[in-house]
Amino acid sequence: MSEQIYAVIMAGGSGTRFWPMSRGDTPKQFLRLLSSETLLQQTMVRIAPIIPPERVIVVTARAHAEQVRELLPGLPPDNLLLEPVGRNTAPCIGLAALLVRRRDAGATMAVLPADHFVSDEEEFRQVVVSASRLAAGGRLVTVGIRPLRPETGYGYLRLGEHVGEEAARFVDAFVEKPSFDTAVEYLASGHFLWNSGMFFFTPERILDELELHLPRHAAAFGRIDQAWDGPEVGQVLEREYTAMEPISIDYGVMEKAAEIAVLVGRFPWSDVGTWAALREVLPRGENDSVSMGQVVELDGRGNVLVADGGLVAALGLRDMVVVRSGDAVLVCPRQRAQEVRRVVEALRQAGLDGYL
Amino acid sequence: MSEQIYAVIMAGGSGTRFWPMSRGDTPKQFLRLLSSETLLQQTMVRIAPIIPPERVIVVTARAHAEQVRELLPGLPPDNLLLEPVGRNTAPCIGLAALLVRRRDAGATMAVLPADHFVSDEEEFRQVVVSASRLAAGGRLVTVGIRPLRPETGYGYLRLGEHVGEEAARFVDAFVEKPSFDTAVEYLASGHFLWNSGMFFFTPERILDELELHLPRHAAAFGRIDQAWDGPEVGQVLEREYTAMEPISIDYGVMEKAAEIAVLVGRFPWSDVGTWAALREVLPRGENDSVSMGQVVELDGRGNVLVADGGLVAALGLRDMVVVRSGDAVLVCPRQRAQEVRRVVEALRQAGLDGYL
Repeated sequence: MSEQIYAVIMAGGSGTRFWPMSRGDTPKQFLRLLSSETLLQQTMVRIAPIIPPERVIVVTARAHAEQVRELLPGLPPDNLLLEPVGRNTAPCIGLAALLVRRRDAGATMAVLPADHFVSDEEEFRQVVVSASRLAAGGRLVTVGIRPLRPETGYGYLRLGEHVGEEAARFVDAFVEKPSFDTAVEYLASGHFLWNSGMFFFTPERILDELELHLPRHAAAFGRIDQAWDGPEVGQVLEREYTAMEPISIDYGVMEKAAEIAVLVGRFPWSDVGTWAALREVLPRGENDSVSMGQVVELDGRGNVLVADGGLVAALGLRDMVVVRSGDAVLVCPRQRAQEVRRVVEALRQAGLDGYL
Repeated sequence: MSEQIYAVIMAGGSGTRFWPMSRGDTPKQFLRLLSSETLLQQTMVRIAPIIPPERVIVVTARAHAEQVRELLPGLPPDNLLLEPVGRNTAPCIGLAALLVRRRDAGATMAVLPADHFVSDEEEFRQVVVSASRLAAGGRLVTVGIRPLRPETGYGYLRLGEHVGEEAARFVDAFVEKPSFDTAVEYLASGHFLWNSGMFFFTPERILDELELHLPRHAAAFGRIDQAWDGPEVGQVLEREYTAMEPISIDYGVMEKAAEIAVLVGRFPWSDVGTWAALREVLPRGENDSVSMGQVVELDGRGNVLVADGGLVAALGLRDMVVVRSGDAVLVCPRQRAQEVRRVVEALRQAGLDGYL
């Protein structure tokens, strides 16, 4: 059994929740949201001490190949997997499993979203190593985050029995984003973790699970695998991938699979789902606001103020989001940050595509 | 007695209440706040049908001479009076009176702020002509605006007896900006008008009033007048003007003078004192918001949204001001728009003068 860990960084996301900083060709993973590095670069740097670039696979949309190459010059060219179209996480992971199995059938895959926030990276890496070891034995493994608040924006994992003598527990159930009252119960019970979207398994094991739960996807992967080294691999990938049903690994596999093990991540974590989430991950001022870039705030409280170039001046604001980026400004109450896509939709309908 | 009317446009203001559109060298009168023309240009255009450019005098700060010449190419060069420093309205008007007296001692002066909003220009011009006729007889005349709401941002005029058979009344008192409760009483009483800051008199009459109420200023004007055609006029003006106490015509003369006549202006008017005032002068949408430039508003109400270039997107805002101009954005509740100068002060203290 190999002890090798392959990181599979899922960088295929396309989203509008960080408009106006996120425009057509710069989804969240390519934004310098939390530092001078993009979230994708931070993800790669975070695992570098335990996984060298030769064993990092990045999966992204074909349209973003050039961006990824520029952001990650140390990534070997053959480690960049390009999706002809986005089909959610199950196809992305299946494709990566084909590649990892070819490289080292005994390796384990650490599947990591490219666009999350993590701090206490040492703790994070220890969990990744522990989860990968557990997965090397043939298990499906995930990492859950000890919840800090009754968050309604995350999925949860219900904890089950202990896994032998390991620190791991079995996942009793994957549960969807709860109502606020339910989230309060989850938090109080101590039996629930946030679903971090990180998964660990051998390529053989996840391909077996795809066979079991998503047989049509598995058949397509079989055809892609057969064509892998041939002259028609591009055409086959295009055809098979495009025809696949989009489905997440959570919904397509994890919610149906038996005996998934979970390790508890105690590191600060966020999926950074909206502008409002910056308040969970950036240091807050005395007035409970967070700011990035050149910001002047007077008599404010609880705001998220972002100047991606230029200046944002906020006077007397409460619980607001203000983002200045390029030629556009977004202002909304923090509680409505998840509705930013409505702004994007309105711009599209108004024919103002130049701002998208 | 000449029937000539000279317009004296007071364009010397410097202010920060329209930051970030108004920067160091573009005070309000030079902003395209309400249309594609600046407020100064609108003022000149508004009186053009009754007062030709040869009889328009513009008084501005020396630093703004070039701007005025560019904005008003039709203004004869000798009709631009440059103040070495700003000394409020009494010195500005005294200086203009010296010039008008030299041109036509029997003319009347219609003193008009350069940065106010007026619509129904026909009605406005009729009032200017009526007020000037009344002033030609030697009276001090002003125009008051019939109040539309209990505005606390304006000074008021209390109406006294009728002036003979004229439509005019005497001003019983000039009163300072009232509290809200007092403003409600003023509105209900029907005896009060908004002080529009427009004044009408012959040059001789206003110079007599300056002599009476501001003798030191009058003495300085005497010295400036003596030097007017000589080689040292520049030096004398510089010395005398700089040494003058800054004082408004309202406080220095009008509040002390006897038998001021007032005509009622029934045209829509605003001094456009803050960003919030745009809601009083621009057409409101169904949701009671006003916007300028490229604005997308969703689920909003009562906002003032200004995109001076680029785009402003507002989601779920109530009674807010958002202004995008150049490299800066301002966001504040409408009720606090009068505090924008605090932002400017904070920028100065933070050494961020590049944004001022």
